[in-house]
Amino acid sequence: MLKNIPDIISPELMYALMNMGHGDEICFGDANFPADSMGQRVIRADGHKITELLDAVLQLLPLDSFVQKPCVLMDAPVGNEPAVWGKYDKIIRENDFAGAFKHGFEKVERFDFYDRAKECYAIVATGEYEGYSNIILKKGVIFK
Amino acid sequence: MLKNIPDIISPELMYALMNMGHGDEICFGDANFPADSMGQRVIRADGHKITELLDAVLQLLPLDSFVQKPCVLMDAPVGNEPAVWGKYDKIIRENDFAGAFKHGFEKVERFDFYDRAKECYAIVATGEYEGYSNIILKKGVIFK
Amino acid sequence: MLKNIPDIISPELMYALMNMGHGDEICFGDANFPADSMGQRVIRADGHKITELLDAVLQLLPLDSFVQKPCVLMDAPVGNEPAVWGKYDKIIRENDFAGAFKHGFEKVERFDFYDRAKECYAIVATGEYEGYSNIILKKGVIFK
Amino acid sequence: MLKNIPDIISPELMYALMNMGHGDEICFGDANFPADSMGQRVIRADGHKITELLDAVLQLLPLDSFVQKPCVLMDAPVGNEPAVWGKYDKIIRENDFAGAFKHGFEKVERFDFYDRAKECYAIVATGEYEGYSNIILKKGVIFK
Amino acid sequence: MLKNIPDIISPELMYALMNMGHGDEICFGDANFPADSMGQRVIRADGHKITELLDAVLQLLPLDSFVQKPCVLMDAPVGNEPAVWGKYDKIIRENDFAGAFKHGFEKVERFDFYDRAKECYAIVATGEYEGYSNIILKKGVIFK
Amino acid sequence: MLKNIPDIISPELMYALMNMGHGDEICFGDANFPADSMGQRVIRADGHKITELLDAVLQLLPLDSFVQKPCVLMDAPVGNEPAVWGKYDKIIRENDFAGAFKHGFEKVERFDFYDRAKECYAIVATGEYEGYSNIILKKGVIFK
Amino acid sequence: MLKNIPDIISPELMYALMNMGHGDEICFGDANFPADSMGQRVIRADGHKITELLDAVLQLLPLDSFVQKPCVLMDAPVGNEPAVWGKYDKIIRENDFAGAFKHGFEKVERFDFYDRAKECYAIVATGEYEGYSNIILKKGVIFK
Amino acid sequence: MLKNIPDIISPELMYALMNMGHGDEICFGDANFPADSMGQRVIRADGHKITELLDAVLQLLPLDSFVQKPCVLMDAPVGNEPAVWGKYDKIIRENDFAGAFKHGFEKVERFDFYDRAKECYAIVATGEYEGYSNIILKKGVIFK
Amino acid sequence: MLKNIPDIISPELMYALMNMGHGDEICFGDANFPADSMGQRVIRADGHKITELLDAVLQLLPLDSFVQKPCVLMDAPVGNEPAVWGKYDKIIRENDFAGAFKHGFEKVERFDFYDRAKECYAIVATGEYEGYSNIILKKGVIFK
Amino acid sequence: MLKNIPDIISPELMYALMNMGHGDEICFGDANFPADSMGQRVIRADGHKITELLDAVLQLLPLDSFVQKPCVLMDAPVGNEPAVWGKYDKIIRENDFAGAFKHGFEKVERFDFYDRAKECYAIVATGEYEGYSNIILKKGVIFK
Repeated sequence: MLKNIPDIISPELMYALMNMGHGDEICFGDANFPADSMGQRVIRADGHKITELLDAVLQLLPLDSFVQKPCVLMDAPVGNEPAVWGKYDKIIRENDFAGAFKHGFEKVERFDFYDRAKECYAIVATGEYEGYSNIILKKGVIFK
Repeated sequence: MLKNIPDIISPELMYALMNMGHGDEICFGDANFPADSMGQRVIRADGHKITELLDAVLQLLPLDSFVQKPCVLMDAPVGNEPAVWGKYDKIIRENDFAGAFKHGFEKVERFDFYDRAKECYAIVATGEYEGYSNIILKKGVIFK
Repeated sequence: MLKNIPDIISPELMYALMNMGHGDEICFGDANFPADSMGQRVIRADGHKITELLDAVLQLLPLDSFVQKPCVLMDAPVGNEPAVWGKYDKIIRENDFAGAFKHGFEKVERFDFYDRAKECYAIVATGEYEGYSNIILKKGVIFK
Repeated sequence: MLKNIPDIISPELMYALMNMGHGDEICFGDANFPADSMGQRVIRADGHKITELLDAVLQLLPLDSFVQKPCVLMDAPVGNEPAVWGKYDKIIRENDFAGAFKHGFEKVERFDFYDRAKECYAIVATGEYEGYSNIILKKGVIFK
Repeated sequence: MLKNIPDIISPELMYALMNMGHGDEICFGDANFPADSMGQRVIRADGHKITELLDAVLQLLPLDSFVQKPCVLMDAPVGNEPAVWGKYDKIIRENDFAGAFKHGFEKVERFDFYDRAKECYAIVATGEYEGYSNIILKKGVIFK
Repeated sequence: MLKNIPDIISPELMYALMNMGHGDEICFGDANFPADSMGQRVIRADGHKITELLDAVLQLLPLDSFVQKPCVLMDAPVGNEPAVWGKYDKIIRENDFAGAFKHGFEKVERFDFYDRAKECYAIVATGEYEGYSNIILKKGVIFK
Repeated sequence: MLKNIPDIISPELMYALMNMGHGDEICFGDANFPADSMGQRVIRADGHKITELLDAVLQLLPLDSFVQKPCVLMDAPVGNEPAVWGKYDKIIRENDFAGAFKHGFEKVERFDFYDRAKECYAIVATGEYEGYSNIILKKGVIFK
Repeated sequence: MLKNIPDIISPELMYALMNMGHGDEICFGDANFPADSMGQRVIRADGHKITELLDAVLQLLPLDSFVQKPCVLMDAPVGNEPAVWGKYDKIIRENDFAGAFKHGFEKVERFDFYDRAKECYAIVATGEYEGYSNIILKKGVIFK
Repeated sequence: MLKNIPDIISPELMYALMNMGHGDEICFGDANFPADSMGQRVIRADGHKITELLDAVLQLLPLDSFVQKPCVLMDAPVGNEPAVWGKYDKIIRENDFAGAFKHGFEKVERFDFYDRAKECYAIVATGEYEGYSNIILKKGVIFK
Repeated sequence: MLKNIPDIISPELMYALMNMGHGDEICFGDANFPADSMGQRVIRADGHKITELLDAVLQLLPLDSFVQKPCVLMDAPVGNEPAVWGKYDKIIRENDFAGAFKHGFEKVERFDFYDRAKECYAIVATGEYEGYSNIILKKGVIFK
């Protein structure tokens, strides 16, 4: 335990967040996501909701304002949009850094999402159960 | 030994099954299958029949209902179809999850099967002796 | 995700539980426990209560009935006994295997507990916050 | 598969048998044996009876005739001697090499057996269920 | 770069701080300190003053209030006490957690300090030039 | 030493032979063969003739009867055919398995042979001195 | 500490500088640079300005006079040229070796700079905060 | 030290020379050569002239007589041919094996030389100072 | 193959011989010797007689003349002295360096020999079949 | 090549020198010294005289003035003192740092020297031929 660091963040997750730079992406995969077969770096967070993790991670991670939409969802069939999307939206807005999220989410088709996940700096394997809840965040910059 | 885990499942096999996600595939190769030269992860199960292993693995592994045919056989010349295919069919049906197997097996030619095995998450090297007994399973999802 | 495996159990934790044998011990350390400096194998479970983990692990792990007390607590100063002890007692009793827990907990002094933790097969680094909540379980046997 | 090699013998087991020399010992632990926490080299043979393995291994492995008793059992309480001991006796006699087994088994107390297992060249983790079925074999020599 | 994390803290240093637990110690060695020959984990911070590092680290690290003196200096000959000691005192007091530092520094002789450094969880190799500026911090606990 | 295993076969060579499956190939390179720069797995057998090795290996290894010619030579200029070819022919015929060798050798040009060697499961670096003595064997199957 | 080696240069940085040869390049990335995801060798220099590092490194490193412009900047939008560029210019000129820098900087667009960084021998992850401050140096030769 | 082995040859260099086979190449790079960024295996020989090394290596290494020119130089601008070329010529002729060098040197342009060096079995990083002194040798065969 | 290096010497054996220094010992174990369980470095020479290996190695290796008896045998029961001892004596005398062998062999009891083998720099696992044929050589010095 | 770094110093040697701290020792062993069997870190400098290496290393390395005699020789029999000792004395005096060498050499008996070498941070394996030429240097400090 350290002061001011949310306890849900493991040393491995923190290490990845710190090593990431401008433009690097991190994916939060749900409990059924094939994290190990596609991720270069897989960080286990079994049993945790993605909302819990986003809430903690976004206290530390700036989003990229150099692109239109630094937050990417795996698209869901019309009518099947999961309830967590709304929660993600709220958590991101509360932690937004310099308005990076102002254009909302980018949504990509399932297999395109997989291709993008393979390029991510890290994949967090969570215990999220809701369908189509996978999300990718692109890291931004901090200037003094 | 753990409660409720079939004892034929080694720690390495369980570890692979748990790390696999939606769409990842696992191949069970017979005693003559060139597992080591094509598999990224090879799990030894020398001396065991594939039927014994399927029976245990399918108590844990859901099959993929997002594709037509999540179970793949190496095709055999007409008239040489092995007896184990019938046994596989029975074992799979008994453990089917949400009707994923309702369209039966996909069958692919020997060298195409090799190419697919190379893409599998893991290959289990068994002691099965019958010809054309190799089989690939595609993992499905579990929702709460 | 696998059928019948609690989702809080990571592949690494399952792998350790399966590799453990009769008499091997596993320690669940709280959020301040020095897991990494003393554990031969450290399994991260950041952000989770020990009660959540015990509840899942004891569905799989048999306790050792060859010893008097297979469950060990880090002793607390009189009057400071943590509330989690009662919860542990209840969870263990509900999952007890052949009466292994009938003599209740063994309690050992803090530095003796550290020495014992160093000999454990694995240490699970949890997010439990309550003081004196560390616990060690000794694995038992299963006969057919 | 190779000609004349029993198919229950994995490449890893064969590799250990070949690398062992005069006086080196190999332990076959039952399904509850703490193989991983004490063995320098652990070879998985999940789901197999020790009798099946002995039957195969002794076709290859000579026993040590330089010592009185090259086969060691974990001793059982009087009256609890397991039925497998008789089967071991029969299998060993059928494969005996130059009368090495003529003085029968050495039996050692459980914790002494653990200490000896720690010194073994390898431990085979089997699926044997019967109590007190663990056995250690000491390798002998072959002269042309 | 992450929000609220001082930029002098490298990913490796953060990873060590997070993995440390109650009672684990971290040593900050000066530019001439034999870090590599005695440290189990050496973290480079070449070119930085120890004061800069303490200032950053103590924003995160709680000191141990279970011991009398959680901050340890390498003792200096009378009259040669370095000026940095006063700066350390000030920085520590400003970041003190629950009065852990109220009894001031422990001072130990040079070779005893080496022995203690060998037991530290990590050694930070700094660019501090002043003599007798080495310091060890013992990590404390955080309760919610 | 094991019973019934030729003593010229090292543990590493046996391990490779056992891990190979149907269709995998093993190359025996002469003393000047660039084994290390092209082989994925190189097994040293310095100082041994290829005939000695073939004689031992073919007691264990079945040849592939699914292809026309499972034994491949590096072709020699007309008139320079080495004497060992005749010896190879004799040794292979004596150990032939189900007539796999009935069509004799395949011969390939030097650089094509190199390309094929690069795809072999293993290369055995021998002490054979005769020119154009390199040979590749393709493993077959065993059915009970 | 060694005589005549600037103390800001870590053993890892020195090791890279020594192993580099004619034409090899080293990149100094700012605090937001995605060093880890693109660098083959990443050397941490957290908390240090690039000017401090250049000042030290150029006392040792010769620049390449075989190319027109051995120093490469990530180009900035017109009007946003950072103040550090002027400082870099001054430091390089003071340490120039045989006039290698006489044609000034090469400037490349952000994503082209990333591609070039991926080919660098090493990337130094600094604590520089100013925008567009990344710089690549190409190593030259020394003749006696 | 061994009898009859020149003392300038390190164990690593000898190991490479022995593992090389017919057609494998070894490059001797000068003190400014980018050995580490292009060599698969780099062997340090800092502070030594290439002439000293050739003199020792050619006592052991046969040159390839299957190609026209088994010795390759990095070409120099007309008029800048280095004096070492003459020395190389003399050393090679004195150690020539079956007239392999009778057609003299092949010379290739700088960047083509780099491409060829990348394919070499090993690169020896020497302390040679003269410009354009890099040389590649192709290994030949030895017949009894 | 290299000029003047006996072809029975593998690259691994040569590497060990070169890395050994004054006083280091190398053991040649027979086909039944437990090389792997006691040797720090094991070099395979399956299928070769120890006489063949000594004959080659002693062309390179000087014996230690600083001790009385640099060649050590595992002692045999009176009347069972193996014939190879005489051959060893002859080979060593033919290659003796400055009279190091003039006092003949040291002979040590079997288990003392094992203890000494454990301290050897390397153990060569040979195919020698004769009983009590194991031998240890102590390396000497070469002066110019 | 770097400016101001003697070219005889390899990257590995420089890396060791930089990582060493106050009190760490480095040993220069002659061509017959058993470097590999006793050194924790062995740095090859085959073919070089120790005088050449000392001359280069002492331009960088400060000697320890906290002890009486920071330079240690392996003692020689009276009358056999090697000529290099006088050269060492001269080189050290020319590079002395704050009079650390004013009490001259410490000399220790051969086997005590070995014990001390085993504790050294690194051993440099040189090509020095003269008897009793081994030397150990203890690193000192640099203050600004």
